[in-house]
Amino acid sequence: MTTPRTDTGEIPVSAVSPQEVERLLLGAWAETRRTARGVLKDPQFHKVEGMSTADHRERTLKQLHALVEQGAVHRAFPKEFGGQDAHGANIAAFEELVTADPSLQIKAGVQWGLFGAAVMHLGSREHQARWLPGIMSLEVPGAYAMTEIGHGSDVASIGTTAIYDPETEEFVLHTPFEAATKRFLGNAALHAKAAVVFAQLITRGVNHGVHCFYVDVRDDEGRALPGITIEDDGHKGGLNGVDNGRFRFNQVRVPRTHLLNRYGDVAADGTYTSSIESPGRRFFTMLGTLVQGRVSLTGSAVAASKLALIGAITYGNQRRQFHTASPTEEQVLMDYQVHQRRLIPRLAKTFAAAFAHEKLLAKLDDVFSGRDDSDENRQELETLAAAIKPVATWHALDTLQEAREACGGAGFIAENRFTSLRADLDVYVTFEGDNNVLLQLVAKRLLADYAAEFKNADVGALASYVANQASDRVMHRFGLRRALQEFRDTGDERRSANWFKQPEVQRQLLAGRVRQMVVDVASELRSTAKLPMQKQAEVFNEHQYEIVNAAKAHADLLMWESFTDALERVEHEPTKQVLTWLRDIYALTTIEETLDWYLGNGRISSQRARTLSPYINRLLARVRPHAQDLVDGFGYEPDHVRMEVASGAEQARQEEALEYYRTLRASSEAPVDEKTLLDKKRAAERAARAR
Amino acid sequence: MTTPRTDTGEIPVSAVSPQEVERLLLGAWAETRRTARGVLKDPQFHKVEGMSTADHRERTLKQLHALVEQGAVHRAFPKEFGGQDAHGANIAAFEELVTADPSLQIKAGVQWGLFGAAVMHLGSREHQARWLPGIMSLEVPGAYAMTEIGHGSDVASIGTTAIYDPETEEFVLHTPFEAATKRFLGNAALHAKAAVVFAQLITRGVNHGVHCFYVDVRDDEGRALPGITIEDDGHKGGLNGVDNGRFRFNQVRVPRTHLLNRYGDVAADGTYTSSIESPGRRFFTMLGTLVQGRVSLTGSAVAASKLALIGAITYGNQRRQFHTASPTEEQVLMDYQVHQRRLIPRLAKTFAAAFAHEKLLAKLDDVFSGRDDSDENRQELETLAAAIKPVATWHALDTLQEAREACGGAGFIAENRFTSLRADLDVYVTFEGDNNVLLQLVAKRLLADYAAEFKNADVGALASYVANQASDRVMHRFGLRRALQEFRDTGDERRSANWFKQPEVQRQLLAGRVRQMVVDVASELRSTAKLPMQKQAEVFNEHQYEIVNAAKAHADLLMWESFTDALERVEHEPTKQVLTWLRDIYALTTIEETLDWYLGNGRISSQRARTLSPYINRLLARVRPHAQDLVDGFGYEPDHVRMEVASGAEQARQEEALEYYRTLRASSEAPVDEKTLLDKKRAAERAARAR
Repeated sequence: MTTPRTDTGEIPVSAVSPQEVERLLLGAWAETRRTARGVLKDPQFHKVEGMSTADHRERTLKQLHALVEQGAVHRAFPKEFGGQDAHGANIAAFEELVTADPSLQIKAGVQWGLFGAAVMHLGSREHQARWLPGIMSLEVPGAYAMTEIGHGSDVASIGTTAIYDPETEEFVLHTPFEAATKRFLGNAALHAKAAVVFAQLITRGVNHGVHCFYVDVRDDEGRALPGITIEDDGHKGGLNGVDNGRFRFNQVRVPRTHLLNRYGDVAADGTYTSSIESPGRRFFTMLGTLVQGRVSLTGSAVAASKLALIGAITYGNQRRQFHTASPTEEQVLMDYQVHQRRLIPRLAKTFAAAFAHEKLLAKLDDVFSGRDDSDENRQELETLAAAIKPVATWHALDTLQEAREACGGAGFIAENRFTSLRADLDVYVTFEGDNNVLLQLVAKRLLADYAAEFKNADVGALASYVANQASDRVMHRFGLRRALQEFRDTGDERRSANWFKQPEVQRQLLAGRVRQMVVDVASELRSTAKLPMQKQAEVFNEHQYEIVNAAKAHADLLMWESFTDALERVEHEPTKQVLTWLRDIYALTTIEETLDWYLGNGRISSQRARTLSPYINRLLARVRPHAQDLVDGFGYEPDHVRMEVASGAEQARQEEALEYYRTLRASSEAPVDEKTLLDKKRAAERAARAR
Repeated sequence: MTTPRTDTGEIPVSAVSPQEVERLLLGAWAETRRTARGVLKDPQFHKVEGMSTADHRERTLKQLHALVEQGAVHRAFPKEFGGQDAHGANIAAFEELVTADPSLQIKAGVQWGLFGAAVMHLGSREHQARWLPGIMSLEVPGAYAMTEIGHGSDVASIGTTAIYDPETEEFVLHTPFEAATKRFLGNAALHAKAAVVFAQLITRGVNHGVHCFYVDVRDDEGRALPGITIEDDGHKGGLNGVDNGRFRFNQVRVPRTHLLNRYGDVAADGTYTSSIESPGRRFFTMLGTLVQGRVSLTGSAVAASKLALIGAITYGNQRRQFHTASPTEEQVLMDYQVHQRRLIPRLAKTFAAAFAHEKLLAKLDDVFSGRDDSDENRQELETLAAAIKPVATWHALDTLQEAREACGGAGFIAENRFTSLRADLDVYVTFEGDNNVLLQLVAKRLLADYAAEFKNADVGALASYVANQASDRVMHRFGLRRALQEFRDTGDERRSANWFKQPEVQRQLLAGRVRQMVVDVASELRSTAKLPMQKQAEVFNEHQYEIVNAAKAHADLLMWESFTDALERVEHEPTKQVLTWLRDIYALTTIEETLDWYLGNGRISSQRARTLSPYINRLLARVRPHAQDLVDGFGYEPDHVRMEVASGAEQARQEEALEYYRTLRASSEAPVDEKTLLDKKRAAERAARAR
């Protein structure tokens, strides 16, 4: 299909095909997403705002049962137990739950994505047969007892102990001090009958590190079993449909066979065995299933960002404020440059995050289906998830907030859901891996990759690399290279825009930044290799901020690459053009955010830099007429959106008001403005004086 | 008092005097603040988390009655009615309410700061005598009916009409279309018996613009009076103790004498008179009392930021995570550079905002006390409030969020209040003047000042100015000036730090940016002066983003100046030293945020720019040991803070855990780590092979 257009942005306003956008975004699991969305149109799944915590918790439990009835939550489980062995599809469907109620999503995630997944991935065939049916049917609601008051991100250091007693062939689970209390556990406060509990496995005087145990926690009447103290975490900033709570164990005995023993086992006599020799690698293998949580939160964050933008952009296209350019008609919010600046770059980043997430999900499916479950691919999946999850979840909070502000007071009313979604998603940035900690994992991987590359380089290559580095430094130090650029580059706006819009330029800028930041940090750290541990830690800490920033830059690049790859899949040309502008907006606003780095490192001349912001503003104005089609392309229906601001009511109100004034002006009853009279009077006085 | 110190930051850890910091921050209304804080230690005023909306609303109403009993809310009213004519003190006390419950604050603000203040400032002596006693005693709860569904920031365009009927000597209040429904009105949904209603005053066929009317809205049984439809705005993102609602008027008749007629009156025969000839000036004069709301929200936002930092910094000094530098002791969070980066710049900005607010409050007191109520001073107050309110309220949301994230999962639990305060304060950024709209007011004032300055300049000065401008431009265009700087400035870190820490350099950088941004925008706009309105509006819109950014830069400068002035008032030398570093951190992180501008405009060389971030990191490490004393200096007691993370419980838990491990290591029962055994085994194997 071809629609007339030119390169200067003159394509018809209705050029974007929302259907094409939808097709593109639904991605590989389109049918699953459509099915899941269909299920979630049912009002029984929708969050009721302003409900009491107690009622919300009960409602969420009921919703979970309803999901079981609909067969909506078993895709990841083995076929023999009624699942589909479909890991990517499972997560694609799971992500959609956020549109109904994030509490529903997280409680479902605890039950099937954490509790159930631990039994499935860490347990034996026998464990699965014994426990999965009850977990899948929700006959046995369960908790995932990993986090402690004193240890969240540093799971390896948790304090709970599981000491093996060969006399009775039992493990003795114990909370040795208050900080080792399990905390923030979904399902724990009220509903869990059992839990998977992570504890230091100690047998024959040796601590084999963190392992996972299946533990019954409540009797049939819902009372805590002997030795287990359960407390309620109480009201939270959001997700109050989830009953988070705490467990303390006082010498609680569980049968030896309750150790989920896929990666490490204890024989009746207390002998420990494992298929993985290194305790470190064993630990990370056992924790590997956690990546599913990170991937699914990424997708959920993208879905919430989409809802926010549907609300704010629809409203921005209908609400009018200030007689900016006409005395009779107020201006639509989306026509204001600042409004475009607030919403369209976030729209662009939402697309980027959506495409990056789709890649992540495909990789997860490769790994978990066993289709490509190499160590390398698994590590790549984990690094990718650790990079994208922080950026996508922070982006969701930022977008929900900006959208809420862009709707003014209306954005604050619960019926418009921005504040509710934001409150619920808040914790997504610190759970399933604190964002700042995840970024440090990414950075460590980047540094390790760089070190490996360096080690493998032959001496000649190395020497020339070092020489290049050195001359680079001299060039930078004396600003020579940039000064030369500037004499040549007089800041011609058109030439500058032509440069910025080239994908190769964007790639070089984004990738060059990651590369240089890693090189800079690595060279600082290399000199410390022979220092004592404490000193090394100090130097590392002195560069921690840079390290985190390098990881963020890496995530930016990954998102840009995903967006750029996705453009190849767009068949409808005008849609492709608009999405290309949107990709450019993503790239250029990302570069703009750290423009000081590009300037300070001589990557962009100050002449060019000064043209960047105006060029972005022009791109925003170019995309602006298509903003509605783009959010319509998210494919959510009114039953998913459920926001007054997106209902069209504002448009009706504006038309009614406009009609009222139009009729009034045409009638004889229209009052005259005092100001008009005053202006006339003053003009008459001036005329009199002039005579 | 002198404490030994050097310029390199080696001052004792306990060098900061929290008492001195407290004295400094309590400012001019220290006694009032202390009294208000004393009252608010009473648990009856404290927000109960997780309460239902209905219960919260009733509780808040009761709290208002309790405030009346305590004599805590009448300071601004005239002495003859039992007030104190004390405007600055009134707001200082009002701000403290946020620590108890922001709903309490806002409901009190509606009753006395808006409803009561409208009667006081817009009404006659007779109006005051008639209505103020009931308002002050809360016998008559009231609403402030200004905002409509269709008009928030653009009050001049509201749709509600008040048409004078000389036959009956009444005004007929009417809502002519749905968008003119009054909305988001505190007290409206349940408790208001009366309201001040803003409407277009029309008499004898002339619209005299927006005026304010005192209107009874409910009878003694709480039913809406005839012609008035009242609806509930329902659940909100926060502030659910305030019963927001809507009014619609259907030909509601109010006596002529209910027009609050201080600035405009209608005689029995319908003749309109006003002491202010210009309808525009009259409108802005009537709206002038709104500035009180902006000033008080600024102070409240600062108070909430303080609470957030007390929580996160106290916890950051106690919570430990990861064995970064020692195998037996985990590292305290505040020792991580990223944690310092997250919290200390926000601490610095909180001080800057506090000092700027103190200035604002002093100016408000000057104006409202009549001590210095010139037109110029009033405009200056309004511009100052319009600049600081956006920055301070956004800062509060940002700080509450970062503090919540810095406490991980604990930050999300309601008992730690971060999420609750954030939810309640969210709307502070859009009410009492939408932040983005306020910034545009500031920018317009900056542009007007610049234009006036230009007009007054004599020809010679102007010519030389233009010449300077031109050579400046050439210098910038060819990067000459910077290139020269760079040859001279080889990026020596010490010299660079010495430069950055000079107050004069900071001032020049911050002030120079505002100046240049205004000049740049003004020169773009000047060329449009003769174009038609629509075209002018277009060009203005094309620079709207720059304009808003110029206003933000202006606010940054004001905050820096306030901080710098406040340093003069510090008597305790070591405290002064630490606060000076903190001021430097505020200045330099602010510059760092827009470093691209300084680079692109040749204000900072790229050599220097590269030393900025490391220098900030060193300053953060220098302030870090004093962070606890600084937040202790906020002067809030446990009854104000009420956060588990700030209670010291974490410290006790850490000590208990440390003691447990210490005892265990000393005993014979300590398990050996599998990793230790493995390392030994491998070493033995290597030794065997070597033999």
